[in-house]
Amino acid sequence: MPAFVNRRDIQFMLYELLGAQTLPERELYEDHSRETFDDAINLAYNLAEKYFAPHNREADLNEPHVVDGKVQIIAPVKEALEAFRQAGFFSAHHRYDLGGLQLPSVVSQVCHACFQAANIGTSAYPFLTIGNANLLEVFGSDEQKAKYLPHLLSGRFYGTMALSEPQAGSGLADILTTATPREDGTYSLSGTKMWISAGEHELSENIVHLVLARIKGAPKGVKGISLFIVPRFRVNEDGSVGEHNDVNLGGLLHKMGYRGTTSTVLNFGENGNCLGELVGEPHKGLMYMFHMMNGARIGVGMGATMLGYAGYLYSLEYAQGRPQGRKAGNKDPHSEPVMIIEHPDVKRMLLMQKAYVEGAFALGLQCALLEDDQLTHLDEAKRQEAALLLDILTPIVKAWPSEYCLEANKQAIQILGGYGYTREYPVEQYYRDNRLNPIHEGTNGIQALDLLGRKVIMGGGAAFTLLSREIEEAINQAREHEATAAWAAELEDTLRLVQQTTQELAEGAARVGADLFLANAHAYLEMFGHTVIAWMWLRQAVVAARALEGAKEADRNFYQGKLAAARFFFVWELPKTRHQGQILRAFDRTTTDMQAGWFA
Amino acid sequence: MPAFVNRRDIQFMLYELLGAQTLPERELYEDHSRETFDDAINLAYNLAEKYFAPHNREADLNEPHVVDGKVQIIAPVKEALEAFRQAGFFSAHHRYDLGGLQLPSVVSQVCHACFQAANIGTSAYPFLTIGNANLLEVFGSDEQKAKYLPHLLSGRFYGTMALSEPQAGSGLADILTTATPREDGTYSLSGTKMWISAGEHELSENIVHLVLARIKGAPKGVKGISLFIVPRFRVNEDGSVGEHNDVNLGGLLHKMGYRGTTSTVLNFGENGNCLGELVGEPHKGLMYMFHMMNGARIGVGMGATMLGYAGYLYSLEYAQGRPQGRKAGNKDPHSEPVMIIEHPDVKRMLLMQKAYVEGAFALGLQCALLEDDQLTHLDEAKRQEAALLLDILTPIVKAWPSEYCLEANKQAIQILGGYGYTREYPVEQYYRDNRLNPIHEGTNGIQALDLLGRKVIMGGGAAFTLLSREIEEAINQAREHEATAAWAAELEDTLRLVQQTTQELAEGAARVGADLFLANAHAYLEMFGHTVIAWMWLRQAVVAARALEGAKEADRNFYQGKLAAARFFFVWELPKTRHQGQILRAFDRTTTDMQAGWFA
Repeated sequence: MPAFVNRRDIQFMLYELLGAQTLPERELYEDHSRETFDDAINLAYNLAEKYFAPHNREADLNEPHVVDGKVQIIAPVKEALEAFRQAGFFSAHHRYDLGGLQLPSVVSQVCHACFQAANIGTSAYPFLTIGNANLLEVFGSDEQKAKYLPHLLSGRFYGTMALSEPQAGSGLADILTTATPREDGTYSLSGTKMWISAGEHELSENIVHLVLARIKGAPKGVKGISLFIVPRFRVNEDGSVGEHNDVNLGGLLHKMGYRGTTSTVLNFGENGNCLGELVGEPHKGLMYMFHMMNGARIGVGMGATMLGYAGYLYSLEYAQGRPQGRKAGNKDPHSEPVMIIEHPDVKRMLLMQKAYVEGAFALGLQCALLEDDQLTHLDEAKRQEAALLLDILTPIVKAWPSEYCLEANKQAIQILGGYGYTREYPVEQYYRDNRLNPIHEGTNGIQALDLLGRKVIMGGGAAFTLLSREIEEAINQAREHEATAAWAAELEDTLRLVQQTTQELAEGAARVGADLFLANAHAYLEMFGHTVIAWMWLRQAVVAARALEGAKEADRNFYQGKLAAARFFFVWELPKTRHQGQILRAFDRTTTDMQAGWFA
Repeated sequence: MPAFVNRRDIQFMLYELLGAQTLPERELYEDHSRETFDDAINLAYNLAEKYFAPHNREADLNEPHVVDGKVQIIAPVKEALEAFRQAGFFSAHHRYDLGGLQLPSVVSQVCHACFQAANIGTSAYPFLTIGNANLLEVFGSDEQKAKYLPHLLSGRFYGTMALSEPQAGSGLADILTTATPREDGTYSLSGTKMWISAGEHELSENIVHLVLARIKGAPKGVKGISLFIVPRFRVNEDGSVGEHNDVNLGGLLHKMGYRGTTSTVLNFGENGNCLGELVGEPHKGLMYMFHMMNGARIGVGMGATMLGYAGYLYSLEYAQGRPQGRKAGNKDPHSEPVMIIEHPDVKRMLLMQKAYVEGAFALGLQCALLEDDQLTHLDEAKRQEAALLLDILTPIVKAWPSEYCLEANKQAIQILGGYGYTREYPVEQYYRDNRLNPIHEGTNGIQALDLLGRKVIMGGGAAFTLLSREIEEAINQAREHEATAAWAAELEDTLRLVQQTTQELAEGAARVGADLFLANAHAYLEMFGHTVIAWMWLRQAVVAARALEGAKEADRNFYQGKLAAARFFFVWELPKTRHQGQILRAFDRTTTDMQAGWFA
């Protein structure tokens, strides 16, 4: 089986870059050690290889379909999820008292990454369930937690997030699903949700939908949205599954990729018999949902990253073994063809992939570590800082990998040429699967508005100031090494550009109005994203430069590769931010001046 | 049915930009007029709408498959091609004495574009046949022409180009198919070809393969490759179809997109009974093939363009009718959502598509006009110039649309959001179909080598000097209009950069060696491509600026749209060339320094 993750790189990220081996110093993780972390990761890798990877293509070719009103999914999906369940991965990150393994977020994220790389479609079922459980753990009442959490975390029930409706995807303010209070304190739900991943299937005993809806008479807009637990089957006092709760499949959506995961239209309360339990207080549903969105967005970014990573590794193996063409300038027809990895343009496509996927991987794990830090860092100030950093990095960790690791998949196809375009090879599926990621969990356009319209200006720019400080620290360290000094200077210049641009935008906002202030938010996201990934690469390069001396042959190659990918990013990618800064600082009006009627 | 081509833009391109109405001044086209051109285009549009567009999705969902040894293709494909045949489009561009309509290349290209936009998979069959016939017309013997041409141009026989083999795609020097001379002057063919589009089907009475093979004992490398006519069924003296020629289907390839066109593995001479006729002289096969490649590459570029164009028009229609969200700064929850076309970021995605697809469309038709000019321009010097320009523009017209119109399709999906990702909407298919175009007919990496390694330096840079002069002429015209003067200056700067970069590369080539000279050819292709498309936009902008005054309302909107898309290209796109120039002029060694062993 071809490699789908790079285990050496996992070691590098966790222990050489992020220092995860120090996490057991924290009380919550005191039973753990680098060994237990590695055991968990090895277990995940082995299960992913044995149960997830083998049916990745089969699930693509045989997507879920309805027979006699029931959603049929190929058998290996359930087998894989049963292995996942038995190994305890539903609750890997949760506390012992919830039946969990109490692993740090950054370690459980690596475990998940193995499953995502092997089979993104099958791994979506447990990850949605875990996200659902996480929300209930924070905002559910004691009673709700007792009723649902153990079953979600044991993998007996699966979960969904039911936000979008046919007429309201990015614009949740306009959702129409309504909740009518009943005398017993529950609510009667009515409405249609769309794009609900894992919304209907027979993989688990029950499905717990977390549904956004308006309580009758609630204020219009986002401040009138509440959150409800709406199980597919009602749950009896003893935890057994009772009668059907009038949540009905309206239809399956047929996607370009990501086909292993059902995507559904769900009709709630067609027969007036759909009961939901309010979570927390009325009208605060969107806030609860957003609170959990950081985690979900890291998950999407990591999924995009691992698809990119799997494609990179596959195309690398192919390039190493495919003879074709000769070195430029070699006109001797009797010479043998070289492996295509020797061609500079193929190296470019491989370096590009490596720079994208390993940069994104570092960022995803950095964000997971911030999740740990905000809860468990020994220093209270650092906990607060971690929360702030996570807030500002969330739009980046979702949008950047979903854009650039999709691009990586495009390059993987190109390296395989015609082969890459056929369904006999995996890379075209990665590309199709990955195309979802810029869309769901908040489109990248929404991420851009979140970044420029909220995150960088919130608290007087507190998060941005903090992030700048972190980046400056990396720059200072990189300055001290000959191998990295030039890149440190390059990143410093870029950071100044981002700071200056941000300041000019903020100062000009009142003058130009909200529409123009936000008009080029996507260019801002691009510029900011590249700067953040350059930060990741500078840190990786410093680690590699330090470790290179005295390293063994295999390690030397690995570190040289890190330095080469860093170089690629600094020379070929980061300078693109100059042009974005130009557009932004000019408050460019190309899009706002354009009239809808002029298109044709 | 949603629009798949913009008929107003066709008029603009042909008559306002390219002056095709003057072509009837040339003897070959003297029977024609703007009216006959428009009649042909309208006929093509109507047939495309009636016969090609309706089964585009059906062909994607039901790809060709083998039943009892025969390739089965859904019935509407044959019906559509019969309508195409009856209307005379197989020979639209050919001379009357060949049964053709003697339409200029630029007009027949527009006709083809309508079919490509409606259904790229079905339209591939006739276009491959036409390319095949064009080659035979130039290089076939009189006897061969008499034997095959009438049947190809009447659509009775279909044709293919059989170049690639499993081990040799980009590297044709290593093909293994052999041709053994027989006493009767024919050859016995033996070998396996792969990726042969339309290689086997029951759509036509016969299939005429043009096969590259080595005559036994031929020199190694590209100088030992000859070209053969190898029909599926032998053709009798009277033109009737005789016995099977031992060309056997090895298998169908299952592609990510472009599924309507069969892609095949073909085994020639499994039973030692496959006869081929040599075309022209021995060992000159690749030269013959390349001679016809200009046309094929324009065809691929136009196919990419039309997929991009169809996606743009679809996403435009969607954005005009989909309400969601409010203007930035509008916090009133009681306000109604606006159509998403009002959001600046959606306008950006639409403008980007418009700039890409209309820029590419202009270039494709400009190249088709150069095909006309090289044969029929009244001025002999202009004929030679046209041939030179076509040579240097060919790698651009193939590579640029296949890269950027694919990107356009990605944006179309993004505008539709989740809907765009489902197979219920057409844009995901356009994206999948278009992903083939950077690969086939010479990968874009190969185009980059062709441009930098041959086209810009050939004849002491003659073609490049000529192209520069053409671009400068456009700059001079654009300088005279207030609306376009700034863009003229921008293009002038860019052209200087390209010239300077080219000169430095050429001068440094001997010093740095062939490997490094060509290492960053892809960046050169990108820089050059954007410059050429900027030329197309500057010319469109000048026409629009001139026409705007005194134009009627609908036309005013159209011209404003042209100016806005030109602005987008000059502000958002063209400055990207600066960074590419930087990499190139530095002879950047990032890829050449990278060692294969450092990847992991």
